[in-house]
Amino acid sequence: MSGAMSGAVSVVVHDIGELLTNDPDVGILRDAAVVADAGRIVWVGPSASAPAADRRIDAAGRAVIPGFVDSHAHLVFAGDRAAEFSARMAGQPYDGGGIASTVTATRAASDDELRGLLAGRIAELRSQGTTTVEIKSGYGLTVADEARALRLAGEVTEETTFLGAHVVPPGVDRRAYVDLVTGPMLDACAPLARWVDVFCEPGSAHAFDGEESREVLTAGIGKGLMARVHGNQLGQGPGVRLAVELGAASVDHCTHLADADVTALADGETIATLLPAVEFSTRSPYPDARRLLDAGVDIALATDCNPGSSYSSSMPFVIALAVREMGLTPTEAVRAATAGGARALRRDDVGVVRVGARADLAVLDAPSHVHLAYRPGVPIARALDVS
Amino acid sequence: MSGAMSGAVSVVVHDIGELLTNDPDVGILRDAAVVADAGRIVWVGPSASAPAADRRIDAAGRAVIPGFVDSHAHLVFAGDRAAEFSARMAGQPYDGGGIASTVTATRAASDDELRGLLAGRIAELRSQGTTTVEIKSGYGLTVADEARALRLAGEVTEETTFLGAHVVPPGVDRRAYVDLVTGPMLDACAPLARWVDVFCEPGSAHAFDGEESREVLTAGIGKGLMARVHGNQLGQGPGVRLAVELGAASVDHCTHLADADVTALADGETIATLLPAVEFSTRSPYPDARRLLDAGVDIALATDCNPGSSYSSSMPFVIALAVREMGLTPTEAVRAATAGGARALRRDDVGVVRVGARADLAVLDAPSHVHLAYRPGVPIARALDVS
Ligand SMILES: [Zn+2]
Ligand SMILES: [Zn+2]
Repeated sequence: MSGAMSGAVSVVVHDIGELLTNDPDVGILRDAAVVADAGRIVWVGPSASAPAADRRIDAAGRAVIPGFVDSHAHLVFAGDRAAEFSARMAGQPYDGGGIASTVTATRAASDDELRGLLAGRIAELRSQGTTTVEIKSGYGLTVADEARALRLAGEVTEETTFLGAHVVPPGVDRRAYVDLVTGPMLDACAPLARWVDVFCEPGSAHAFDGEESREVLTAGIGKGLMARVHGNQLGQGPGVRLAVELGAASVDHCTHLADADVTALADGETIATLLPAVEFSTRSPYPDARRLLDAGVDIALATDCNPGSSYSSSMPFVIALAVREMGLTPTEAVRAATAGGARALRRDDVGVVRVGARADLAVLDAPSHVHLAYRPGVPIARALDVS
Repeated sequence: MSGAMSGAVSVVVHDIGELLTNDPDVGILRDAAVVADAGRIVWVGPSASAPAADRRIDAAGRAVIPGFVDSHAHLVFAGDRAAEFSARMAGQPYDGGGIASTVTATRAASDDELRGLLAGRIAELRSQGTTTVEIKSGYGLTVADEARALRLAGEVTEETTFLGAHVVPPGVDRRAYVDLVTGPMLDACAPLARWVDVFCEPGSAHAFDGEESREVLTAGIGKGLMARVHGNQLGQGPGVRLAVELGAASVDHCTHLADADVTALADGETIATLLPAVEFSTRSPYPDARRLLDAGVDIALATDCNPGSSYSSSMPFVIALAVREMGLTPTEAVRAATAGGARALRRDDVGVVRVGARADLAVLDAPSHVHLAYRPGVPIARALDVS
């Protein structure tokens, strides 16, 4: 996913009122410009001394930030679950069981239907400032359907994640399903994916316990995939510590953490990715981001966009929630949604504005990145097309 | 504010997947069409039997609703208060004192600067589905500046509100200021306004107590204005009961209510307008909408868009908050943001899709109005241009 692929022309974005670079040597620049060439940043500096380029984009004093890096999304699906959402808002609890209805609709959809839905979702993301997105399988749950989801995801992003272990399909034996996921399904999917993931939630009848999760992740790592984990969403459990132990790039949700989990994260290399739109849409308590930052844990923010627990694709909304509900400053939240997401994907070419990085930028209809929290719900961010 | 003024051609909007009419005799229609002529609705019914029109708009299965009626907004201002917002998120309480900084910036702006800012805000509202907006003065606080704000507001909406009694200007004697607001300022502003409003909050050094509020409202009513009230935002007080006693169309905020306030609202004709984006942006407890509905009180939802306590212009965001935080169903919330807002402005020609009403419609990039709550932060609504 990038808006900077097609052209070989150079582009200068000038009169940027505030440029949030995420480059620790540079910080925030005022009255800045960025020059891109063939999709890469080749110059960053004061607007007044910007070199010429084939095309000029006038930011007219607006703020520019690195495009959002949404490191956790489930975008290959058909159907919606608005009725389940309404029932949940009327008091029904969320336990992941509704995933089965999306599986049925997704299996029934043709490749072209799914491709069309995916294209619409990518456009929606870009219209809100997201320029990199991770996409998981997990609504197929058969060898063929999981491989298909990854093939389609690979058409729109490099960040593809094999999530055969999303839920145990209804009516399928757990043990047999884990064997499938770690055997033939992994064989078919590993060549199509960069990451392996698992929904580790021992308290849920639908998800996987610690030992099953270890099997899934270890098998994926053995096939050359890197690990990421859904952990500690619905209650405390082994997900976070397992992720750190196995060297996962990220453990996502982190809503219910024991002190030992926080210590493990602080001592390890695994990013804690927080998904507050899930807590918004399931009316659950929010993860304690302040506790994590104060303990020295690196965090990311992502949408978890999916039709069940968080049908939001809006990184600005996630930022506003992180400030309102999780004690982050606006700047911390925007960093977590850009540089944080990049770290959660082990990427150093996105989430930052510096020479050599991809020219993946978002422009704000506002003078400052603070407005992403100050103007909740207002669509002020959009990806900048520098191709 | 209307998107349906300029043309005399007729327009049919067809293939509407779900049409939320707010007409109690009709309810929700599937596969519907609406025909507009010269800005008025002239036909509503099944898409298959829609009459011909000069222009056709294909809704392609999307949901259509009455455009949002945002019955409470402060849009005539210059400057922003992002730094104050950040400080508040870091723990500083909100008491309305920051309004003075907006007053300074607004007085310093030229008519054309304010006109340009206002035009941008109206475009932003329409891009989010709002087709009627009430606009208050209240950042001028002199006779000339208040009259100017109302003149500019009157260029973009019929719903203009004189809010000279927004705050007591710093350094001005309270008693002298109430005399000004009820005397020369009212004389200058009444011909330019439809409504009179007051920030009734006895606990605040900046706002007005019950007796002062009564003076302001009574004087305005005496000059032919209709009353609306800011009441019970920061604590319990006389605002709600005063509004009901004086026959105000609406009392807005209603965050802190005694049982007697709820009873007064249930027995009276005054709408309770809830502004949850304020509670979001001031990190305050939300009003108890369920308690009001269960007591038989009519409610509306609005943004209170202003640079201090709620710099959101997004009615979809307000709807999502009302469902998440205030116990409304998605349908109740959408009704409160459309028909509710219309009642709070004593209008029967907006907030409803029926023959004779204004053709002020919003289309959703979604199959159902439920998605306004199900897809928080995602800009799925936009005003439909049927001119
Ligand atoms: Zn997920
Ligand atoms: Zn207000």
